[in-house]
Amino acid sequence: MANSAEERRLAGLSELACLVADGVATTRSALIAATGLSRSAVAQRVDLLIERGLLVESEPLATDRGRPPYSLDLASDEALVLGVDLGATHSRIALTTLGGRVLADEAREIDINAGPERILGGVAEQIAKLCEANGRAPESLRAIGIGVPGPVEAESGTVVRPPIMQGWDGYRVPAFFEGRYPVPVLVDNDVNMMAFGEYVHRRESEHLLFVKVGTGIGCGIVAGGVLHRGASGAAGDIGHIGLPGHDDVLCHCGNVGCVEAVASGSALAAALRAEGLDARRAGDVVRLVSEGHPVARRQVRLAGRAIGEVLAALVSFHNPDTIVVGGVLAQLHEDLLADIRGVIYRRALPLATRTLKIENSMLGEQAGVLGSARLASRHLLSPRGIGAFLEARRR
Amino acid sequence: MANSAEERRLAGLSELACLVADGVATTRSALIAATGLSRSAVAQRVDLLIERGLLVESEPLATDRGRPPYSLDLASDEALVLGVDLGATHSRIALTTLGGRVLADEAREIDINAGPERILGGVAEQIAKLCEANGRAPESLRAIGIGVPGPVEAESGTVVRPPIMQGWDGYRVPAFFEGRYPVPVLVDNDVNMMAFGEYVHRRESEHLLFVKVGTGIGCGIVAGGVLHRGASGAAGDIGHIGLPGHDDVLCHCGNVGCVEAVASGSALAAALRAEGLDARRAGDVVRLVSEGHPVARRQVRLAGRAIGEVLAALVSFHNPDTIVVGGVLAQLHEDLLADIRGVIYRRALPLATRTLKIENSMLGEQAGVLGSARLASRHLLSPRGIGAFLEARRR
Repeated sequence: MANSAEERRLAGLSELACLVADGVATTRSALIAATGLSRSAVAQRVDLLIERGLLVESEPLATDRGRPPYSLDLASDEALVLGVDLGATHSRIALTTLGGRVLADEAREIDINAGPERILGGVAEQIAKLCEANGRAPESLRAIGIGVPGPVEAESGTVVRPPIMQGWDGYRVPAFFEGRYPVPVLVDNDVNMMAFGEYVHRRESEHLLFVKVGTGIGCGIVAGGVLHRGASGAAGDIGHIGLPGHDDVLCHCGNVGCVEAVASGSALAAALRAEGLDARRAGDVVRLVSEGHPVARRQVRLAGRAIGEVLAALVSFHNPDTIVVGGVLAQLHEDLLADIRGVIYRRALPLATRTLKIENSMLGEQAGVLGSARLASRHLLSPRGIGAFLEARRR
Repeated sequence: MANSAEERRLAGLSELACLVADGVATTRSALIAATGLSRSAVAQRVDLLIERGLLVESEPLATDRGRPPYSLDLASDEALVLGVDLGATHSRIALTTLGGRVLADEAREIDINAGPERILGGVAEQIAKLCEANGRAPESLRAIGIGVPGPVEAESGTVVRPPIMQGWDGYRVPAFFEGRYPVPVLVDNDVNMMAFGEYVHRRESEHLLFVKVGTGIGCGIVAGGVLHRGASGAAGDIGHIGLPGHDDVLCHCGNVGCVEAVASGSALAAALRAEGLDARRAGDVVRLVSEGHPVARRQVRLAGRAIGEVLAALVSFHNPDTIVVGGVLAQLHEDLLADIRGVIYRRALPLATRTLKIENSMLGEQAGVLGSARLASRHLLSPRGIGAFLEARRR
């Protein structure tokens, strides 16, 4: 509930922008009818949104009688949103319209441990290059969304005690962009961004889990259409849930039997190395399975069962409609998904699995970057996002 | 986002009612300023809310100059909300004001298996008796919230395949009240109501789990201030999550090693019976422990560890700020909570437990009935609740 005059003003601007974005009311008269606001209040708000480049007003619509109305729309082509997906070894960016259409994207290899200034400097270069190659002015940017491979205090965009990402602890990512782009910068954990990307892409889902099985194991949670981050931004950190019967497996967190120590890409690579195979990382496991190596295949199936045990408990608890499996190991979907599904259907309650879908990612490598862009777009049209946007333009 | 003219009208009524309820705007002028609505639009909506008995307009406020404004408030004393908590063997009701103050409550013993018509008939008797004893007219009722001991399709208030509650499967609870009270009736699982009651009572909590340890084991989930029911209303059904090392324990669900088969009140009573003790149900376990019986005490501590194992995984996944333990066995908090806490702090991630509170219920036996009343109040002021209320009054 809005409390201050300024909050109420921003809520009002957000309401109008969302009515236009969703196509519910796309003329000034329709906005007056939809909101009950006075003509002058609508005019004042719409004019501000147009002036700041979030809405556009088109040529008059053809009508049979009377004065033809001007139609309103999101400033989609003129207003750009940038999605960024930073991984341990990749930096992927995508330029989209405010309405969500992808205009261009680019990926390059990085080492996230080079630290925030160098990595984000590289992102700024990527942005400039992509804008130029596509004939877009960087001034058209309206919002930026960034997913990073570590825990984030989402309110401020600060990286908090990341297990990887050397040099990033306590770094407030939006600070880097403040001098460069006067737009809201939304930062979140990469798996949260992937979950949000798949959620927006699958229009019929409301409660979705995105399980990333790569070097580690993590989960993004959408509950009732909203990203669930939990009390300290740690929600979805399922890699260290304990597995029965693996008390002899030591995890890097200091506990034993964590699912990440048993079934992640790096755990599988270690297990295959112990069998004398050439496997240094998750990608090598995928290669060995693709080459038809039975020991590798067996390991992946056992990993699927272990992950399924953990997910069965989470299905009983959260009752999602969709579980999306992504990450490098998800390429092995025939082997991995079969065992994950088998355990969940055997172990979780029938009421919770009746209509549950367990599927591979539809967006694949693009899930993170598209989720970042969509979350940034949605944020931009929210009361807080509009507030941050107007504030940044004022400086 | 509101889509039809009627939905937008209800959203507008809800907005005004909530601004008044929260004390943000309590005069017509303040509502005009807060919403940007025209004077006539505010007048039309406020008059309707007063006429239907949700708002009241008081004597003019004293001011120094000009025409003194009339102040608006929730029709709290004139408008009542009823909370109902149905258990396997009890029916508790509480009469509250729309603002949440408890006026009176009453509990009686029932057998839920007597079926919906008899049980709800008894509730109707309780309502009439409580209203009369407190000099309140049943016509003052504005909303009813009911918690039942089984799964509920919350949208329609229909009981769905309850493990107990003979004769209730497929019964739409609001239908019983339609002829009697022209108000919205909100039905939900009893543990969800308890979770919501504790959530409202603890103002600083946002992500709360209410774990009920009684005859069975269940959980209510609040995520971001909203009850999380999941895709098929099965969220929080944690009693059948599998526990490591208990593959020899058969559960009534047909699986083995479910936490409910190992650590619930009925499981503990069975274990104590096997030791030759007189224990038929959860309450007997509490009695034996209170009498200082070491075997009973030992069983409760082992149960605490088992429940802690399950909750540790859920803490890593959901990252709540508060876990409330309720139900009959929660009376043994010194024994039960100590072990639950011990396992969670040892096993869940430090980032997720840093600020986590694990406590006994503050509301005790009242959690369900107060949660039902508060959820019904909140529903009544929502767009859908206002719609249902106006619709019912029209008939």
